[in-house]
Amino acid sequence: MPRWKPDAVERLHTAALELFDEQGFERTTVAEIAQRAGLTPRSFFNHFADKREVLFGLSAELQRELVREIEEGDDTTPPLDAVVRAMGVVADKMFESRRALVTRRLAVVAANPELQERELGKNAALTDAIAAALQDRGCTPDTALLAAGAAMLAQQAAFRTWAQPGETRPLRDLLPAALHALRATVTS
Amino acid sequence: MPRWKPDAVERLHTAALELFDEQGFERTTVAEIAQRAGLTPRSFFNHFADKREVLFGLSAELQRELVREIEEGDDTTPPLDAVVRAMGVVADKMFESRRALVTRRLAVVAANPELQERELGKNAALTDAIAAALQDRGCTPDTALLAAGAAMLAQQAAFRTWAQPGETRPLRDLLPAALHALRATVTS
Repeated sequence: MPRWKPDAVERLHTAALELFDEQGFERTTVAEIAQRAGLTPRSFFNHFADKREVLFGLSAELQRELVREIEEGDDTTPPLDAVVRAMGVVADKMFESRRALVTRRLAVVAANPELQERELGKNAALTDAIAAALQDRGCTPDTALLAAGAAMLAQQAAFRTWAQPGETRPLRDLLPAALHALRATVTS
Repeated sequence: MPRWKPDAVERLHTAALELFDEQGFERTTVAEIAQRAGLTPRSFFNHFADKREVLFGLSAELQRELVREIEEGDDTTPPLDAVVRAMGVVADKMFESRRALVTRRLAVVAANPELQERELGKNAALTDAIAAALQDRGCTPDTALLAAGAAMLAQQAAFRTWAQPGETRPLRDLLPAALHALRATVTS
């Protein structure tokens, strides 16, 4: 077995979610996660600083992909639309094929205050990264922060619909309706 | 000296901010904070669970006042305007007389990741409380969450201006411009 496996992060992420779902976050150990993923605890710690962090295994990739999409997008698109468009592209790439996993992850995070706290921190970092990408496109700092924050509100609304039992539409198709609802709320 | 002082929370809050500012959050002990406030460590723990919590001494009152203002406001005002109006009233009541203190607090929180994390948690709880108050006024859950999130974006933008060195306008007067900037960003 080679020491480094390209899918180790994904396997640890999946194993952790299965175990958190089955027996709870608190009662699951790193050793159990590693075992279910067919890896050693040592290789767990090669990828993640602690047990919480395994649930945020996709967040660095999400941030990188989203920033790249925003930077590569059409310069003439208004900032909020540019971010929401990029979110749709990244959702197709990263979330659609893992729908059950991502939905389960949302439930695990919602059930644990410690995890919610880290989720808020990751979302704040993502918002800052989006705002920085918008500033690189020429937005003022104020507009960049408002557009990034508004895009996160639309994404969270779309996520809430996407994660409903029985909902089958891709996240990308739910984002325009969420953006429309945000616009209606902000302008009414 | 009476055992219970009505201004103990305010004195501990001020003492903590002065010490965090002078010598840093990490190097300040609860005993030092209590001493500067003229109280015992025991009375510190009567009011706050830990050293971080003293910085959030106003957050329960802020949430209570804001929810009350929203619930007492005119029913026909659109939700986002209703929340921003309430924020202005509460800002006059709670922040204007403590401008130096609140500004110093923002700097202390911004300098410490642990404090930032708790601030994000408090803001999320405040957003949920605002959304619940809007639902009580008849908003759908989706609209309530979007309006609450948008109001928080406007408030944070107004706070950033308010906390600038040399800025003298009250927060209440900065909120309409922040709301206008949010509307322009979201609709462009």
